[in-house]
Amino acid sequence: MKIVALLTDFGTEDNFVGVTKGVILKINPKVTLVDITHQIGAHKVKKAAFLLYSSFSYFPKGTIFLVVVDPGVGSKRKALAVKTRNYYFVGPDNGVLFPSLEADGIVEVVEITNKKYLLSSISSTFHGRDVFAPIAAYLSKGVKLEKLGREIVDIKKLNLPQVKIRKNTLTGEIIYIDSFGNLVTNIDRITLEKFIKNRNFVAFLNKKKITKFCDSYLQGEKEPFFIEGGFFKLEISLKMKSAKRYFKAKEGQKIVIKRR
Amino acid sequence: MKIVALLTDFGTEDNFVGVTKGVILKINPKVTLVDITHQIGAHKVKKAAFLLYSSFSYFPKGTIFLVVVDPGVGSKRKALAVKTRNYYFVGPDNGVLFPSLEADGIVEVVEITNKKYLLSSISSTFHGRDVFAPIAAYLSKGVKLEKLGREIVDIKKLNLPQVKIRKNTLTGEIIYIDSFGNLVTNIDRITLEKFIKNRNFVAFLNKKKITKFCDSYLQGEKEPFFIEGGFFKLEISLKMKSAKRYFKAKEGQKIVIKRR
Amino acid sequence: MKIVALLTDFGTEDNFVGVTKGVILKINPKVTLVDITHQIGAHKVKKAAFLLYSSFSYFPKGTIFLVVVDPGVGSKRKALAVKTRNYYFVGPDNGVLFPSLEADGIVEVVEITNKKYLLSSISSTFHGRDVFAPIAAYLSKGVKLEKLGREIVDIKKLNLPQVKIRKNTLTGEIIYIDSFGNLVTNIDRITLEKFIKNRNFVAFLNKKKITKFCDSYLQGEKEPFFIEGGFFKLEISLKMKSAKRYFKAKEGQKIVIKRR
Repeated sequence: MKIVALLTDFGTEDNFVGVTKGVILKINPKVTLVDITHQIGAHKVKKAAFLLYSSFSYFPKGTIFLVVVDPGVGSKRKALAVKTRNYYFVGPDNGVLFPSLEADGIVEVVEITNKKYLLSSISSTFHGRDVFAPIAAYLSKGVKLEKLGREIVDIKKLNLPQVKIRKNTLTGEIIYIDSFGNLVTNIDRITLEKFIKNRNFVAFLNKKKITKFCDSYLQGEKEPFFIEGGFFKLEISLKMKSAKRYFKAKEGQKIVIKRR
Repeated sequence: MKIVALLTDFGTEDNFVGVTKGVILKINPKVTLVDITHQIGAHKVKKAAFLLYSSFSYFPKGTIFLVVVDPGVGSKRKALAVKTRNYYFVGPDNGVLFPSLEADGIVEVVEITNKKYLLSSISSTFHGRDVFAPIAAYLSKGVKLEKLGREIVDIKKLNLPQVKIRKNTLTGEIIYIDSFGNLVTNIDRITLEKFIKNRNFVAFLNKKKITKFCDSYLQGEKEPFFIEGGFFKLEISLKMKSAKRYFKAKEGQKIVIKRR
Repeated sequence: MKIVALLTDFGTEDNFVGVTKGVILKINPKVTLVDITHQIGAHKVKKAAFLLYSSFSYFPKGTIFLVVVDPGVGSKRKALAVKTRNYYFVGPDNGVLFPSLEADGIVEVVEITNKKYLLSSISSTFHGRDVFAPIAAYLSKGVKLEKLGREIVDIKKLNLPQVKIRKNTLTGEIIYIDSFGNLVTNIDRITLEKFIKNRNFVAFLNKKKITKFCDSYLQGEKEPFFIEGGFFKLEISLKMKSAKRYFKAKEGQKIVIKRR
């Protein structure tokens, strides 16, 4: 039983996800379809890259990830089908797949060029349906990667932001804000612990402070706190409230932590 | 493996879609369920009709479309089960199925009357669960259409709006606005090209102008442009922005194009 | 073909539902996954309890309900796996399962303690993925309840509010507001009919009145009315409009009905 997992910026209000699935089922009616999310916001390549990277390893070996966040649709950006050590990935060559490919280990990358495996009418705005969906479906039927196009080596890179440490200052970044308003940073718990070495710390975000670390949401009091969240990264949270609203935070903002 | 594809105005916040699927799976646990969308807005029959019409042909032959946009629920409007050349359609007789039935070709229409194939308790507000879902499920198990009720001929008509051309003026309509803010018109690319005959054109919408045609989103500059979109209709778009917001546009508004 | 039905407050914007499903499919790729809803609002245990109670009986016998509305995640609240007469339920011990368990009849309750059936890394914020999802998956593969932990008897109770009748006054409560704006009360049609005994009645909500009962939405005129809705409870509705907006109503508000 092959699985195709979808991550797009299509939203769920239109018929875009539905027809994409129709196309897949028309080619392989036995596939199991799973939505990762379709609501990351239009054209948010970096955010999609992070969500894919945080999701893929929870799926069974052999899962095919169909990823369509594609502001360059209709331009000359390449369309990719990639085999990694444990999975397949299909999507545009704009970096959205990159952190996941690197993490799982690339085996083979193909630029999709063989029209035999695409829909007969290809629109210039909806390659999710016309290009990527049929490719994912044929992969799920066991069609070999090399039949889909020509092998390539160079693909667009996109790296998730790294933590920087200088003397007494650790600088991280908010890489994701979840729908509960938790601010997911790129800082690991171990990185923070090594940095603060059992001393106190103070973190600054939009001129507001965080000075606590909690092990569960319920430990939290009225002030904001760090907690190791489901992404296994430090998140800034508020008990039963939205830290996003409290800090007026946005994705991409820096967070500066100082030892005291 | 039979497929039931769902298109409703139930939204995704309540349990309406979930219990509808539960009812189907209780009758036929082997069916594959696919959502087209459930977020078209309450009672928007015309919009649903367009989305169904734009979606059905992407699905495998034999797919059963369960369509519940049903402001007349509990009144005397008929409940329909329809066999077309390639598909089955189940839904209220309010026109929502009509453009799709006409496009695929009606083979047989039945008014659903046989209570044997409905839930034992039928609410007066939720026929999606109590009437249409079990009918779709029994169709997916191979129950013949004629067993579900009596054959009828007259059904409610609903026609998608037509383009009008008079002298130097082409008048179209915004038939759909997608969640990216693209304004989908009822105008084909070929219709426009025949009309303008390689000359320039100017289109008016809410006192604002469109004078360009682009082949991809990235070709666009700051001004709004026409593009042939995924519905294979002309859409009015803005590069990385919402044309809906720019034009303050609404579904149903006229768009007037003049040759220059 | 085993079914796992999911009801959570995860929302659909993040990857939370997607990875939860990935975890289940990794353990049992043959399971059928159905969403009841994921959009009940963060931490709304009572609302989730009502929706689960209103949904479960529409699903096939043997369905496993995975319910994660879990403000106490990471604290000492227990994690439960429950066998009832016809179903299985997996979720936190905060009352969210209780009305459904009571309605279907508890056969056995287990506190989940056996780490063999959980993910190897357990976060302190995402037990939906790390604890409840694998348990639901192993149940779907036929693992016996008693293997998952130790049998317990006492669980957290949560009772849906009861109607109160005193002399000429019936007091009910708005227990749910659906996305159309219909106000679902805890009052049965039969309870109201017995109470008013064919006389007139007047109901008060936020200083506005309801004096009518309708059999379908289309019977309604401009005033608000009671209708027996899909939950088989009385709902307060307005024809093609939102009663929520008209009454500025909130879940939990009292509704007082008087005989005239």
